[in-house]
Amino acid sequence: MKFCSECGNQIKQAIPKGDNRLRHICTHCDIIHYQNPKIVAGTLPVFNGKILLCRRAIEPRLGFWTLPAGFMENQETTTEAAIRETLEEAEAAVELEGLYTIINVPQIDQVHIFFRARLINEHYGAGEETLETKLFAPEEIPWNEISFPTVFQTLQHYIADHPLDHFPVHVKDIIR
Amino acid sequence: MKFCSECGNQIKQAIPKGDNRLRHICTHCDIIHYQNPKIVAGTLPVFNGKILLCRRAIEPRLGFWTLPAGFMENQETTTEAAIRETLEEAEAAVELEGLYTIINVPQIDQVHIFFRARLINEHYGAGEETLETKLFAPEEIPWNEISFPTVFQTLQHYIADHPLDHFPVHVKDIIR
Ligand SMILES: [Zn+2]
Ligand SMILES: [Zn+2]
Repeated sequence: MKFCSECGNQIKQAIPKGDNRLRHICTHCDIIHYQNPKIVAGTLPVFNGKILLCRRAIEPRLGFWTLPAGFMENQETTTEAAIRETLEEAEAAVELEGLYTIINVPQIDQVHIFFRARLINEHYGAGEETLETKLFAPEEIPWNEISFPTVFQTLQHYIADHPLDHFPVHVKDIIR
Repeated sequence: MKFCSECGNQIKQAIPKGDNRLRHICTHCDIIHYQNPKIVAGTLPVFNGKILLCRRAIEPRLGFWTLPAGFMENQETTTEAAIRETLEEAEAAVELEGLYTIINVPQIDQVHIFFRARLINEHYGAGEETLETKLFAPEEIPWNEISFPTVFQTLQHYIADHPLDHFPVHVKDIIR
């Protein structure tokens, strides 16, 4: 951030009075431009005991398998974001079955939130950001070709929890 | 947002190719400036069966009672943010006892996340944004003077769950 988004003048970095962190402050209108983490919302979609994964058509991690997920938008809820991303990336309509993982990734200022979901029918496809979409039985998951650590962890929790049919919410951090 | 934070030139609103939402786009460098919801993280701090509330010293809702909570910062986790806000606003050191509520407030582009917490000792006080801090037994909670709907809901869940000693995670929306 170099220029004020409200007045177009230059930004300086300084610690405001009563604060203890460096902030981006406008040298002209004094507005403080706070920067905060973003939420990535997604689902772990299941159909007949198999898990729906998407092979990424875009960087980063092009060609790797992922759970459908993406940046939550303004004016929506986390559940709406998760359902929307599943429809966009996997062309799949899902019903959510509960919050499942919340994984902090502080190095990149993100919080990833996954819900367990049930495919409403066997219809799925490849959205614009997806090369192909496929159902995997637990023993077929391509562990060496998973896109992101938050997806890997969410899948690992599911594989561990599924035999017990007990799915507590997992709050985790990925610290690199 | 009127000016590009990277180059200082004017912003236009348009739907980028492959997108379906109006975005803020720089007329000069073509950068798309996405805007996303913010996370507010806090705790429900308990000591000897009583709940610690803070009376707000700042607007909005000056003079009303709240749970300690505030905007999550870049480079931190949700749990770190919740513990930090409790220390800043209530001058109380807590140990988290589990994620408790996630409440979407889409009208203001926020997601509020509360953890149950245990005060490590009976030390607490009033931080800069707090007029006073006080322990309330469940039957003493000042329901008519609670600051925000997300705090109200979180307290109501606790009052309902506490007699059963069972605290499932609640995912809710506040739609105005
Ligand atoms: Zn300015
Ligand atoms: Zn620009």
